[in-house]
Amino acid sequence: MPELRQNMVTKDWVIISTERARRPEEFRQTGDRTADILPAYDPKCPFCPGNEHMSEEVMRVPSEDGGWRLRVVKNRFPALVPKGERVREVDGLRRRLTGIGHHEVLIESPIHNTCPALETEEEMVTVLDTFQSRGRALREDPRLEHIIYFKNHGVRAGSSLPHPHGQLISLPVVPHNTRARNDEARRYFDDHGTCVVCEMLDAERSSGERIIAENEHFVALIPYAAYSPFHMWILPKIHRSSFLEAPAAELQDLGALMRNVLRRLYFGLGDPDYNYVIRSAPLRDDRSAHQHWYVSVVPRVSQAAGFELGTGMFINSALPETSAAFMRDTDPQL
Amino acid sequence: MPELRQNMVTKDWVIISTERARRPEEFRQTGDRTADILPAYDPKCPFCPGNEHMSEEVMRVPSEDGGWRLRVVKNRFPALVPKGERVREVDGLRRRLTGIGHHEVLIESPIHNTCPALETEEEMVTVLDTFQSRGRALREDPRLEHIIYFKNHGVRAGSSLPHPHGQLISLPVVPHNTRARNDEARRYFDDHGTCVVCEMLDAERSSGERIIAENEHFVALIPYAAYSPFHMWILPKIHRSSFLEAPAAELQDLGALMRNVLRRLYFGLGDPDYNYVIRSAPLRDDRSAHQHWYVSVVPRVSQAAGFELGTGMFINSALPETSAAFMRDTDPQL
Repeated sequence: MPELRQNMVTKDWVIISTERARRPEEFRQTGDRTADILPAYDPKCPFCPGNEHMSEEVMRVPSEDGGWRLRVVKNRFPALVPKGERVREVDGLRRRLTGIGHHEVLIESPIHNTCPALETEEEMVTVLDTFQSRGRALREDPRLEHIIYFKNHGVRAGSSLPHPHGQLISLPVVPHNTRARNDEARRYFDDHGTCVVCEMLDAERSSGERIIAENEHFVALIPYAAYSPFHMWILPKIHRSSFLEAPAAELQDLGALMRNVLRRLYFGLGDPDYNYVIRSAPLRDDRSAHQHWYVSVVPRVSQAAGFELGTGMFINSALPETSAAFMRDTDPQL
Repeated sequence: MPELRQNMVTKDWVIISTERARRPEEFRQTGDRTADILPAYDPKCPFCPGNEHMSEEVMRVPSEDGGWRLRVVKNRFPALVPKGERVREVDGLRRRLTGIGHHEVLIESPIHNTCPALETEEEMVTVLDTFQSRGRALREDPRLEHIIYFKNHGVRAGSSLPHPHGQLISLPVVPHNTRARNDEARRYFDDHGTCVVCEMLDAERSSGERIIAENEHFVALIPYAAYSPFHMWILPKIHRSSFLEAPAAELQDLGALMRNVLRRLYFGLGDPDYNYVIRSAPLRDDRSAHQHWYVSVVPRVSQAAGFELGTGMFINSALPETSAAFMRDTDPQL
């Protein structure tokens, strides 16, 4: 029989649909893996070495041969622009704000056809370090309220350029959804005196049935009320509100565990498209006892439709416990 | 310069991205229209006449020749099932509910390759009448709290069978998202003594710049803070919380206006995939002064990615005023 499960962090209900449940293997992608069909270098790619003039560079991590290991550039078609004042206009029911913010692209590697699963641990950690150092620089801008760090891997995940890259967008507002989650977390703290994510992490580690892998500082698991098949959370064991406050040793561990999990996804499910997002607290409210930063990984193996649009609820056709066991048993080939 | 606009009904911020803005024509689909590539009858389609035994019928609207104009059947792979008790279990951080509910499919027409844009007005109205009559029957079930009515048109909108059909899902809970919207609407009512949707409708009709079309009882428009290109709302002028309370004359007008708008989408943008959703109040709270039912139409011409997953915000690369003017000027070929 199907069941509804409530995500205690967001209070969203998810339908765990046993009538349409599929075995983990059925989510395996049958198309070619990116690495197998693309060349390692594409002279027309704006992110490949030799085409550095095609983008405005913000920073780079140099390589020993005088080139670069990673570059941060400005998005050529930015969602928001850095110049201008933050002006809020209220005109009856029309509320608007000037679209100031940053939209940066983090080119992960000079290699055109790689991806996080195939990168070295050092490369993955460099990506996280760079996200953090850009975030720390941008939070000094008093016009900004929030920064989101993410990656779109593959066309189904919204990527338009195959060369591996992450993105960050800084915002002059706290998203309504982020505020609503914070309100829920604060309410939980008021009632229990503890952070809901810390509590959930303790309970999941005791039970173990939804754990995929862990190391000293991080745990990767499938949430009890996962929104979609193989939706994963990678959670820091030490409570902090902000990704920007995580020390180097923690980022090292996060990089190792993200790579581990993304390799299981790559080998276990045949390189599905996915998004990952680093969810950190709003910039001006980032030291609270109730907010807990984490990384969410969402493989795009199912399709949201009218039901999801109309309710904000999701129908998950994979049992979280079964998905977690599959991922746990998949060899990351480290 | 880009701007952020706040949707006053949901309080979500949307980025109206002028830097990546595309002209309306650029959203035109280049693939074949469904009607042109599919046969009018497919002997293997479970929804085509002759295959009625492949589905469990709930009701039908007969045709004069002894066949049917429309059938409601049970979904073969239902998200929720009607048998069983509503049992809520709270076990620490794990909250769950038995997955009871209904998942019905409304086969709009015996013709395999039609779609709402190509159906007659009478067919469109029959669909709405049937949604309403099924909703009225189901709300008598005391285990249910909410019903959502929707259609997925095309693969990008999540449709798995091309034969035209809508769906309804009844739920044993009010979705968290629906509850959150209600809270916002109630707060607006407390502050202003009016329904936020009624107010918005008045303001939009005075300005006219985002209106697409209207008739006696309904207005079709692009919201000021539209989530995505050509995202449309079709709003009843008479305040009611529940779609189930709309009298026949209103459903007649809604059918006419939905068909009008969906034909503009079909001819103006080359039959893009889309979802439509009828958003009605929760079943046990459906007579309030602050909730206003409506229909939302979401063409799937853009792709949500990591930013949207991580913030709940959307980036719209079409200016709502431009999209509305384009739709207003498109001939629905009635």
